[in-house]
Amino acid sequence: MTSGSLAAAPADPTIVALGGGHGLYATLGAARRVSSDVTAVVTVADDGGSSGRLRSELGVIPPGDLRMALAALAADTPEVRTWTATLQHRFGGTGALAGHSVGNLILAGLSEVMGGTVAALDEMGRMLGIQGRVLPMSPIALDIEADVVGLESDPRVSRCIRGQVAVATTPGKVRRVRLLPPDPPACPESIAAIERADLVLLGPGSWFSSVIPHVLVPELVHALMETGARKTLILNLVAEPGETTGFSAERHLHVLSQHAPELTVDDIVVDSASVPEGSERDYLHRAAQLLGAEVTYADVADNGGATHHAGKLAAVLDRLAVPKERQTTPGRETTSWQ
Amino acid sequence: MTSGSLAAAPADPTIVALGGGHGLYATLGAARRVSSDVTAVVTVADDGGSSGRLRSELGVIPPGDLRMALAALAADTPEVRTWTATLQHRFGGTGALAGHSVGNLILAGLSEVMGGTVAALDEMGRMLGIQGRVLPMSPIALDIEADVVGLESDPRVSRCIRGQVAVATTPGKVRRVRLLPPDPPACPESIAAIERADLVLLGPGSWFSSVIPHVLVPELVHALMETGARKTLILNLVAEPGETTGFSAERHLHVLSQHAPELTVDDIVVDSASVPEGSERDYLHRAAQLLGAEVTYADVADNGGATHHAGKLAAVLDRLAVPKERQTTPGRETTSWQ
Repeated sequence: MTSGSLAAAPADPTIVALGGGHGLYATLGAARRVSSDVTAVVTVADDGGSSGRLRSELGVIPPGDLRMALAALAADTPEVRTWTATLQHRFGGTGALAGHSVGNLILAGLSEVMGGTVAALDEMGRMLGIQGRVLPMSPIALDIEADVVGLESDPRVSRCIRGQVAVATTPGKVRRVRLLPPDPPACPESIAAIERADLVLLGPGSWFSSVIPHVLVPELVHALMETGARKTLILNLVAEPGETTGFSAERHLHVLSQHAPELTVDDIVVDSASVPEGSERDYLHRAAQLLGAEVTYADVADNGGATHHAGKLAAVLDRLAVPKERQTTPGRETTSWQ
Repeated sequence: MTSGSLAAAPADPTIVALGGGHGLYATLGAARRVSSDVTAVVTVADDGGSSGRLRSELGVIPPGDLRMALAALAADTPEVRTWTATLQHRFGGTGALAGHSVGNLILAGLSEVMGGTVAALDEMGRMLGIQGRVLPMSPIALDIEADVVGLESDPRVSRCIRGQVAVATTPGKVRRVRLLPPDPPACPESIAAIERADLVLLGPGSWFSSVIPHVLVPELVHALMETGARKTLILNLVAEPGETTGFSAERHLHVLSQHAPELTVDDIVVDSASVPEGSERDYLHRAAQLLGAEVTYADVADNGGATHHAGKLAAVLDRLAVPKERQTTPGRETTSWQ
């Protein structure tokens, strides 16, 4: 147990969390309360801001989402807190460094010196007292490309939009995303982590640019299908302006299935307040069944309702995260812990 | 003793080394072999390269010379070696980051987060396993201004040149340097370190831009005059192209006296091969007497003769660095340990 008040299991369950950005940050904040053995598998397709500038200038894997995951898992001691604040600190002003986060620059430099991103992440993890691990989903920088409708006067016309920022902020409707290069390699350490996991978490986060990219890496989706881990999808609390404007919870599941038709999951964690009882839950239940999942409703939202509450989400994960040797086949029914 | 093979004194002598750049790096590499209690007091007037860009863009104290001093004192363990290499690593390419050293960026970011350069240096020191301390000579960024002759067809005409890079590379002859702002404050921690020192080292290094600036800070030169420490000046092995082209060893001493007329030193360490026996040593001896110093000749050069050899210089410092309680008045004669 890195922190938190939940009872430590005799052996901490092995948790792997897949995602990127603020969604993954929230999941990791919850997962670390449940287990000291947490691995983050992080998207590497960002092309905006500090990360975008670094990947185009230095040819490194975009470090921003990796840095956020390191910060989420960093130890809670005074010295480490100073370094975590420094990693997340962004230079101000109007010069060449404005907007760069210090952690992105350190990760880029350390990767160059150590000859690889995984070695640099492990060293950063050691320095930050992280007991788990932060890994990229792919050893190479990726790009996202999307088919988007609604950008022309004829609403049936689909246009191809390229780049994570462009996809995340398109005023059109995203139909399908692809990775560039297609069928990219997975990071071998990430595959190994999924294989030995007790619990795999996917989401929440920007659905098309942080969640779905994982299932577009062939080795990664294969590992997700083969693992004996319990697989839990955590739905977003609200549809995101831009890429998922107006999407229902059910629609999020359909879109995931479209991109990974053979993938099943065991559980879907849904905030009770975000899906009102009645027909919306019926639709969601049917979409979940197609994925082979049971739906868990729980109060997992923070005060404002826009982000997940680490403690509340941890309480849900603690019930799902049973180490393999003590797992029994979970029931396939809708549960509610409100 | 941080490293090295020289015998540890019952209590390590307290050594303070004043300087900047590669000269200070060499001194610190020697001093750490003699004592685990080494404080670097570092010039903060650099306006070139990565440091110059950071001071003008972010308003920080130029970090380059401070970073070099941290690297010189960093612990010699595998983890720290990785971080030391990362601090010294410079980004390549042709973009906005090209030429920035990662350590400069970390120091700038950490200073912003911690609200001060000294706090950031102490935290970097902790992270790098440094037993001593690295301090700036002044809490504010300084500039150097020089009166230079030989830039006009009339060799008697003096022009004012501003900036460390301009002074260090002028094709003219530097007559006198000043700091801007004039009479800047000293870093209080640096004054305290000089007051409690057993041995204070000044030089080697770029004479006008790394060595003399220290004696232009009023509180600092006052502390140097008041301290009970043994004061040792380490002369350069060769005259530097640019600011001290053609300067004899004797001339270096006269220039120092011109800038700090009341300052005395106890010892002057001179590489035997750099000043041939005969009239040059006579001139040097007379100049040393004006400073109140005895001259110590020793083989302290590295193979090529351009830099000081850490082990050889350490052997000389070990004889000079006697903790105060065991100091006796040193003889005032020329010694030779060739």
